[in-house]
Amino acid sequence: MYKLAPSLLAADFKQLHNQIEAVDKAGAHMLHIDVMDGIFVPSISFGMPLIQSIREVTKIPFDVHLMIEEPSRYVEEFKKCGADILTVHAEACKHLNRTVMAIKDAGMKASVALNPATPLNVLDYVLEELDMVLIMSVNPGFGGQTFIPNTLAKIEQLRKMVELRGLATDIQVDGGVSMKNAKTVLAAGANVLVAGTAVYKGDVEKNIQGFKEVFASAE
Amino acid sequence: MYKLAPSLLAADFKQLHNQIEAVDKAGAHMLHIDVMDGIFVPSISFGMPLIQSIREVTKIPFDVHLMIEEPSRYVEEFKKCGADILTVHAEACKHLNRTVMAIKDAGMKASVALNPATPLNVLDYVLEELDMVLIMSVNPGFGGQTFIPNTLAKIEQLRKMVELRGLATDIQVDGGVSMKNAKTVLAAGANVLVAGTAVYKGDVEKNIQGFKEVFASAE
Amino acid sequence: MYKLAPSLLAADFKQLHNQIEAVDKAGAHMLHIDVMDGIFVPSISFGMPLIQSIREVTKIPFDVHLMIEEPSRYVEEFKKCGADILTVHAEACKHLNRTVMAIKDAGMKASVALNPATPLNVLDYVLEELDMVLIMSVNPGFGGQTFIPNTLAKIEQLRKMVELRGLATDIQVDGGVSMKNAKTVLAAGANVLVAGTAVYKGDVEKNIQGFKEVFASAE
Amino acid sequence: MYKLAPSLLAADFKQLHNQIEAVDKAGAHMLHIDVMDGIFVPSISFGMPLIQSIREVTKIPFDVHLMIEEPSRYVEEFKKCGADILTVHAEACKHLNRTVMAIKDAGMKASVALNPATPLNVLDYVLEELDMVLIMSVNPGFGGQTFIPNTLAKIEQLRKMVELRGLATDIQVDGGVSMKNAKTVLAAGANVLVAGTAVYKGDVEKNIQGFKEVFASAE
Amino acid sequence: MYKLAPSLLAADFKQLHNQIEAVDKAGAHMLHIDVMDGIFVPSISFGMPLIQSIREVTKIPFDVHLMIEEPSRYVEEFKKCGADILTVHAEACKHLNRTVMAIKDAGMKASVALNPATPLNVLDYVLEELDMVLIMSVNPGFGGQTFIPNTLAKIEQLRKMVELRGLATDIQVDGGVSMKNAKTVLAAGANVLVAGTAVYKGDVEKNIQGFKEVFASAE
Amino acid sequence: MYKLAPSLLAADFKQLHNQIEAVDKAGAHMLHIDVMDGIFVPSISFGMPLIQSIREVTKIPFDVHLMIEEPSRYVEEFKKCGADILTVHAEACKHLNRTVMAIKDAGMKASVALNPATPLNVLDYVLEELDMVLIMSVNPGFGGQTFIPNTLAKIEQLRKMVELRGLATDIQVDGGVSMKNAKTVLAAGANVLVAGTAVYKGDVEKNIQGFKEVFASAE
Repeated sequence: MYKLAPSLLAADFKQLHNQIEAVDKAGAHMLHIDVMDGIFVPSISFGMPLIQSIREVTKIPFDVHLMIEEPSRYVEEFKKCGADILTVHAEACKHLNRTVMAIKDAGMKASVALNPATPLNVLDYVLEELDMVLIMSVNPGFGGQTFIPNTLAKIEQLRKMVELRGLATDIQVDGGVSMKNAKTVLAAGANVLVAGTAVYKGDVEKNIQGFKEVFASAE
Repeated sequence: MYKLAPSLLAADFKQLHNQIEAVDKAGAHMLHIDVMDGIFVPSISFGMPLIQSIREVTKIPFDVHLMIEEPSRYVEEFKKCGADILTVHAEACKHLNRTVMAIKDAGMKASVALNPATPLNVLDYVLEELDMVLIMSVNPGFGGQTFIPNTLAKIEQLRKMVELRGLATDIQVDGGVSMKNAKTVLAAGANVLVAGTAVYKGDVEKNIQGFKEVFASAE
Repeated sequence: MYKLAPSLLAADFKQLHNQIEAVDKAGAHMLHIDVMDGIFVPSISFGMPLIQSIREVTKIPFDVHLMIEEPSRYVEEFKKCGADILTVHAEACKHLNRTVMAIKDAGMKASVALNPATPLNVLDYVLEELDMVLIMSVNPGFGGQTFIPNTLAKIEQLRKMVELRGLATDIQVDGGVSMKNAKTVLAAGANVLVAGTAVYKGDVEKNIQGFKEVFASAE
Repeated sequence: MYKLAPSLLAADFKQLHNQIEAVDKAGAHMLHIDVMDGIFVPSISFGMPLIQSIREVTKIPFDVHLMIEEPSRYVEEFKKCGADILTVHAEACKHLNRTVMAIKDAGMKASVALNPATPLNVLDYVLEELDMVLIMSVNPGFGGQTFIPNTLAKIEQLRKMVELRGLATDIQVDGGVSMKNAKTVLAAGANVLVAGTAVYKGDVEKNIQGFKEVFASAE
Repeated sequence: MYKLAPSLLAADFKQLHNQIEAVDKAGAHMLHIDVMDGIFVPSISFGMPLIQSIREVTKIPFDVHLMIEEPSRYVEEFKKCGADILTVHAEACKHLNRTVMAIKDAGMKASVALNPATPLNVLDYVLEELDMVLIMSVNPGFGGQTFIPNTLAKIEQLRKMVELRGLATDIQVDGGVSMKNAKTVLAAGANVLVAGTAVYKGDVEKNIQGFKEVFASAE
Repeated sequence: MYKLAPSLLAADFKQLHNQIEAVDKAGAHMLHIDVMDGIFVPSISFGMPLIQSIREVTKIPFDVHLMIEEPSRYVEEFKKCGADILTVHAEACKHLNRTVMAIKDAGMKASVALNPATPLNVLDYVLEELDMVLIMSVNPGFGGQTFIPNTLAKIEQLRKMVELRGLATDIQVDGGVSMKNAKTVLAAGANVLVAGTAVYKGDVEKNIQGFKEVFASAE
């Protein structure tokens, strides 16, 4: 089954209650929450207090994507703030297995993100432990970028790797995903799409409905 | 003249538009905005996209307090997001004069923050260049902490230092400031108070009015 | 030939002389010495002065495992302290070839350790230079952890890689190794077993004898 | 009252049980335990597991001196290992007040160490919170160095600072202290002496007795 | 077509004008300029002001090899100094795709360097974007080292990888290249040779002529 | 006696032989050599190989100013390259006494540089060990900046501090020094002037002669 993860980064921060209700009501499958520290990526977005605040207004799963150095330092804190899925970058972890196990021990789903140039073999001995892999289709740090074309080949190769091992790992794609390329991205093997402006620009309900139609036609 | 700087960190992040309008309408003098990177301090609060978003709804001066490593990296970005005053930590800057000059060159007021244990003499050769000094009265990183008592002596000593040099530097105090201790803090020599829960807990308008009455009685 | 490397980390630090004599007398093949710096791994174990001190009481080879950042800084010092084999983590070295060559130039055997999630291809262009590869079967930093199951596949794949190139590289396994799983680990392709509590809990001589019997039955 | 803190760094690591019993029996006031991480100082000494091990054999207070980066990371762990006094370096802490409060909150006595070139004014706003100040009289990292002469002036100035504030802060001196210069160091204002080789070289009991006689003559 | 890139590191820094004219006149294809920061590699060579100065005297392409941490910080500066090709180390970049795109956006050719032990698969998803790959045949940091033999296999494997994808990526080799091994290195699949002492020791013109003859015989 | 230290940073890097001969012949007292690593300051200038190369052509003392992180790593190397005076930044050294002693042990004169905002009290317990103090009158990293006015007060206060202790420490000033302000800078208490463009722009001999006349009139 395909899933849509609207990215909070594209929402209007002045009225998050409304913005979250909108995607919730429209039936998004989870909320993608981009935490940036200004060190791992060249911007600071938001973190614990904001996530904790919005946790009160919705039951939608929180898919928290940590674009931060050594995320193992904050696994417990993000659980307390309400994260359901916690994604860490392979490039930011010296002890990837330990970090993944800490996420699972804290009661969250564990996911690993790969930057556009990061090879798939960093997953060789940890894939079995993951609920999801996040393939970055732009360089992390900002919204509104263009989908990097060779990501499609990477998704295909990851899908094969997942199938060869008989796993059911979700493959999420983040960056430059729109209704125009959604079908291609799903066809390549992804099943969870992060969408920012494609959801929050214009009518949120219609946008999400649009993605769902793409999903239905792709199943 | 005394000034009140309500701290956004204590606001309800689900409805920032309302929260900012409330302090704006009640006549706060500036909005204190705490940016945390999870490296300099053990929490990540919020950063550029959120500040940019709320900049649209108010003309109140944005007093942006950077609790981040090497803030010189992002001086330009915070100007673009709408900062009017930019505060950097002395402990986070190897080239404090350069960072202060960069803030002023970008068209913002420059301020330096000192952690509770940091001695005043780090200001010896930069005080003349500053519009404000921020004396931390709690350890930065979280809201809701208790005012550290020896801060009062530090404020007094800084006020003397400022007067001896014939300067008009603002002295801001941040951490554990409430209506109960406000008068004492002002008496010690501070003239800009940051208040978080003391403003946002309960009726914002009444709270701010309360601070203004303390200010009037202290002039 | 199979070899046993009792880990000093599980010994009684109050009486190291006795503890080392015990493994020496019982015929252990080397002493595994875990150096931790509290930065690469979240604990500080011991370092130069302790190793130097125990060097006086035994001729057993010292197999020093550096769980420290940029181990190239201390290659010479560990040689002086009495190390015979020096193991560095691939994740801690930006210049792995240089570090390995420095170890060999200093007159020690060179070994590279891989964290549980680290892929084998980091060895692609350095394997020929190594006397040993250390496959971590737990996350480094603490004793007493459970063997991570997919390590077995990793050992098998490394053994193939070693054989394909016609090498005689030792394959050492560290973490959660006991008399129960020793045979399986050897069968996967390892030939040097690190054992901590499995050696030091109870009767050291009997424990080592037990491992030797497993070795004999596995040859 | 004067106190002697024999430094474990000079002990024979092969037989710590005996070495600790000796100083305990001879009536040392505390055991000075130097933890080095190879980053803050250019050597790795020992850490948690070793301290925990020797904690079982003595009730003598453990005076743990952390020569490590950002010691706030490990305050809880050292409490668990049995530390009674925890000393952190001012040069290693960006948030010195927070670290000191964390040590006290964990139930230990808090102490701050200053490198030879570090000025006393880093204590300006934290001295009241401290049980002890450690004045380094050599550069930290190794035993067996020579006492830096201008340390005496520094001790005198710190003693004045302590008295001016009406405090009872202990002043500890570490590095190159022997029976020859002990009286001068005490006269300058120190009241806790760390001694390494001066205690452990030769007859421990006689050495400690010697220091006690110096103490008696100096009272 | 084969190309020679004399390395400025081996030139006489007292008379760079002459040294550059010599290689220019002798028909070298580009000038290899090694920038070292003392952090990524254990030496500091030279940087922006020197490159800018020599840019005035020649039109020969500047092939600038950055042996520095996080080279993305300085992409614009090196363009301004006159770089035509900019090489960054894979080991120094957390966001390799972003750095490569920044180089190209600045109007330079983009190249990625790999340390001797770095596996080729770090290029899996970025090779298409590169104008050149630099295979280090010694550990970066110093001139005058010996060619590491297994580099030949690495060059062969990279050449296959490039051909399989139908690319025309240049393969540059740096370290220990001389007229003696040049033919072998070209035969393995390299087409751009960096030569330091082999060009600058003795008669520059003759040396370059010698390489050109090797090139002619190898075509 | 006053001394002039022409800064190599302003020289023409294409013809260093000539540039150094010029200042040598004109009777400059030392050559100021600015080493920058791109980490401590935002530019990379030059380092070991360049210094070693120019060492051959002159006997003029080399006054090497290290604008690099943790300069203690390279003290020996700079001695080998020919440094006579080695200046390190207080802001870059955690163990300032150790670094200073290492410089002296290596046979060089030791000097400490202070950034414009750095207070003088960092010298409280190390001044006696120094041959020179370098007061930065601009932010380090680039040539051609304007002299920061409050530097004069800092020089005066340092001169008092030096005299009060009965020392003969040289006080060097670097940044924005020209023939116009030289007299004022000397009057404030400096006795060694670094001059870049003021020496190298125009006729080097005349420029140096000009400074010498200022010196003569100021004695």
